[in-house]
Amino acid sequence: MEIKVIKNIMQKYQDLAQVNRSLLDSYNIFSINIMSSPGAGKTTLLEETISLLSGDVKIAVIEGDLMTSRDAERIGKKGVPVVQINTQGGCHLDSSMIDSALKQFNLADLDIVIIENVGNLICPSTYDLGEHEKIVVISVPEGDDKPGKYPVMFQEADLCILNKVDLLPYSNFNVDNFLQDVKKLNPDLEIIKTSAVTGEGMDYWGQWLKNKIKK
Amino acid sequence: MEIKVIKNIMQKYQDLAQVNRSLLDSYNIFSINIMSSPGAGKTTLLEETISLLSGDVKIAVIEGDLMTSRDAERIGKKGVPVVQINTQGGCHLDSSMIDSALKQFNLADLDIVIIENVGNLICPSTYDLGEHEKIVVISVPEGDDKPGKYPVMFQEADLCILNKVDLLPYSNFNVDNFLQDVKKLNPDLEIIKTSAVTGEGMDYWGQWLKNKIKK
Repeated sequence: MEIKVIKNIMQKYQDLAQVNRSLLDSYNIFSINIMSSPGAGKTTLLEETISLLSGDVKIAVIEGDLMTSRDAERIGKKGVPVVQINTQGGCHLDSSMIDSALKQFNLADLDIVIIENVGNLICPSTYDLGEHEKIVVISVPEGDDKPGKYPVMFQEADLCILNKVDLLPYSNFNVDNFLQDVKKLNPDLEIIKTSAVTGEGMDYWGQWLKNKIKK
Repeated sequence: MEIKVIKNIMQKYQDLAQVNRSLLDSYNIFSINIMSSPGAGKTTLLEETISLLSGDVKIAVIEGDLMTSRDAERIGKKGVPVVQINTQGGCHLDSSMIDSALKQFNLADLDIVIIENVGNLICPSTYDLGEHEKIVVISVPEGDDKPGKYPVMFQEADLCILNKVDLLPYSNFNVDNFLQDVKKLNPDLEIIKTSAVTGEGMDYWGQWLKNKIKK
C-alpha cells in the first residue's frame, strides 16, 4: 500500500518532467540541469557563461537553494531572467518546482534555460526535472576520488565539467586517475576542464552550449 | 496514517541513537560525528589527527560512504580499528548503522569513536547517531557563503572546523564574512581553522579532542 503511494508520487514527478521537456521543446529551448557539491563553483561558472554568451544567446536561469536567494541575486545582476526556488531544507529540486519556475519566464524569448540544482552530489542525481542534459561539476579541491565515491551522479551525467583547474598546482588531484575512474563509470562522458579565474576552457564550454541551441 | 509510520521510524532511530550514546557512556568513550560537503578534507584531517594523537589516545573510526571502502582503507593504514559503512546510495548515516558498527569494536579498549559521515552538507544534519558532539567541516574553496545557504548544519553543530586555510591566498573567501554569518546562525559555535598541509590549527584541534576524553 505504502509502496504504491511512493510509486504514484515518483510517477507524477516523472510525468511532470516530460511535460516540462515538451514545453521547452515547443519553444525550441535547450535546457541543462547543473549539479555539484556545495562550493564547486556552479554560480561563478554561470556568471562567466552569461558574460561570454550575452548578445548571442538568450538565457534564463532557475536557481535552487535551501534557503537564501543569494545566487539568484548574483545571476540577476548579469541582466538575465532568473527565478529562485527555495526548497526549505529539501535536498534536491524536482519537476514540479521547475514547472512552477518555467511559468515565470517569457519562453518565446529564450534559447537556453539553465537550472542550477541544490549543492549536493547525491540526492539530485536521479531526479528528472525535464532538462535535456545533466551536467555534473566537480572541482579540483574536492579530490580525484569523487567519481568512485559518488558514482550515480557520474553515471547519470551527459557532461562533466572539471572546475577550478587553476588550483591544480596547490592540490594532489591526479587528473589521469580522475579520468580513468570516470571512464569506468560512464565511458562516453565528455569532460571539459574549466577555470573561471584564468578563463581556461571557458570558450570551449561556451561553444558546447551554443552548439546545442535549436534555433 | 502515512505520517504515523514516518513518525514511528524516526522515533525508532532516535531511540537507537540514545542506546548508542548510553553504550558509549558505559565505556567512558567520547564520540563525534564529522559532517561536510564531499571533498572538504574530512579523511585527510582524520589521518593527521590519528598521527597526532597516536600513543596518547585510543581511537576507532566509523567511515560512511555510498559505495567504496577507500576511506576505511586509508584510515586502516594508520593502525586504528575502522569499520566501513556503505549506504548503497543513502545520503546520510543513521543510528542503526552506528549500532551495527559499534558491535565490531572492542569498546573497553577505546577512548574516542570518530564517525565520518557521508559527504553531504544537507541530509546528515538532522540525524542523531548517538554521538556526543557534531562537527561540521567547511573548506575554504567551497566559499564563505555556505553558512547562510546550508543553515541547519551550522545550527546543529557543536564545533566548526574551517579547513584548507592554506588555500586562502588563492581564493576570494572572506573569513570575517564567514564568521559573521556563522555567528548569526549559532552564536556560541566555536570555530577552529586548520590546514592538514601546513599543520596550522592541528595542535589546537588535537588538544580540543584530548580535553573531551572521559578517562
